[in-house]
Amino acid sequence: MSGTLYGIGLGPGDPELMTLKAHRLISTANVVAYPAPDSGESFARSIAASALPSGVREIPIVVPMRTDRFPAREIYDGAAKEIAAVLETGQDVVTLCEGDPFFYGSFMYLFERLSDRFPIEIVPGVTSLTACAAQLRRPLTSRNDVMTVIPGPLPDTQIRQKIDQAQAVAIMKVGRHLARLKALLAEMGLIDKAGYVERASLPEQKVHRLIDLDAETAPYFSMILIYKGEEAWTLPPSYSS
Amino acid sequence: MSGTLYGIGLGPGDPELMTLKAHRLISTANVVAYPAPDSGESFARSIAASALPSGVREIPIVVPMRTDRFPAREIYDGAAKEIAAVLETGQDVVTLCEGDPFFYGSFMYLFERLSDRFPIEIVPGVTSLTACAAQLRRPLTSRNDVMTVIPGPLPDTQIRQKIDQAQAVAIMKVGRHLARLKALLAEMGLIDKAGYVERASLPEQKVHRLIDLDAETAPYFSMILIYKGEEAWTLPPSYSS
Repeated sequence: MSGTLYGIGLGPGDPELMTLKAHRLISTANVVAYPAPDSGESFARSIAASALPSGVREIPIVVPMRTDRFPAREIYDGAAKEIAAVLETGQDVVTLCEGDPFFYGSFMYLFERLSDRFPIEIVPGVTSLTACAAQLRRPLTSRNDVMTVIPGPLPDTQIRQKIDQAQAVAIMKVGRHLARLKALLAEMGLIDKAGYVERASLPEQKVHRLIDLDAETAPYFSMILIYKGEEAWTLPPSYSS
Repeated sequence: MSGTLYGIGLGPGDPELMTLKAHRLISTANVVAYPAPDSGESFARSIAASALPSGVREIPIVVPMRTDRFPAREIYDGAAKEIAAVLETGQDVVTLCEGDPFFYGSFMYLFERLSDRFPIEIVPGVTSLTACAAQLRRPLTSRNDVMTVIPGPLPDTQIRQKIDQAQAVAIMKVGRHLARLKALLAEMGLIDKAGYVERASLPEQKVHRLIDLDAETAPYFSMILIYKGEEAWTLPPSYSS
């Protein structure tokens, strides 16, 4: 019998925002896999680090860090092959995924290569979406709101149209699109209703009204949330420093 | 000094999908509050039950269970008053919230009444959105997909328009709108791309292709996920019984 491939959501970054189930599966794992940059630490591994058992076999999936580029086919072909070889011996492989494995996650590249051949279990995680809303201290959606999640790399015309048609809007993957998105939201009269969060739930997190943000670019793990149809919105005093 | 009001996301139902932080705060709480129906058990309390310390003071917020009706002002006025009285003594109040407190959650009714007067901390939770995607074994969003979340009670014309403009679609609060939504999705040629999940992650969960579902109505905690732009979609064999 072959092993099971687990896709484990780790949440937005604070290790305490892992689920009990994620923690249990990681701390009893024999083999873990995770995305890693070509230099520096793997973010996914760093979230799970305190739960990793000693002696666990680690399979880093090294993906060059280039914003807005989807990973090369060959990298995931190779990783899938290495993981399949472990699964075929009957051992499980626990894949560490930032946020949730199925919400804009790179786990899908393993999933599409392996789900026909091996048992898969997905453990959902806290997404950056609600982690950012928590930090901005505003309900994300209520009652019969329509919510739309928009990737920042899309062109202005598309983003404008999607924003027009929702009550609650999240723009993900802000990164190098920050200046353009700020200009667009200013033009749409929404800049004073937008909040900005980077690295939500981590010690180095930043929480700002978008209008107060000076930077021209942002890290990949950053988000803009727009609260339409409300009075001009202010952050609670603890954040306004 | 006054106490802190915590809004704690409990995740979709499986107690193991609580975060470590939720578990810590609940198991050390002196006072908890939670929504409860006028008869029967509170869903939120049932998720947290195994973590509740003995002797904890409980403040049930009794909300009559009527689908698609937003809770009466007086119920939350009363609950906020009772909770404020505890916070004023310097004690914290831990509010138990199904899913995530700020994602279509009733916690907002307490938040809007108390956030000006007391310190608030929100602990995000796993939403039903990604819990359902995990059960349907399909990535919810990938690459630069636009995702839209639509409440089922909205009229057909609105739902049709929102679906047309997104790559990934979730319809929440399906409930008594199931038959209407099925007819609409059939008309739009999307019925064979829609998955249905009720009570995700609980022992009594149901996972179906929407096209295979016979029922005319669904429980409140049910969701339809639509995977557009894909080949006709099938559930993995373990679910097709």
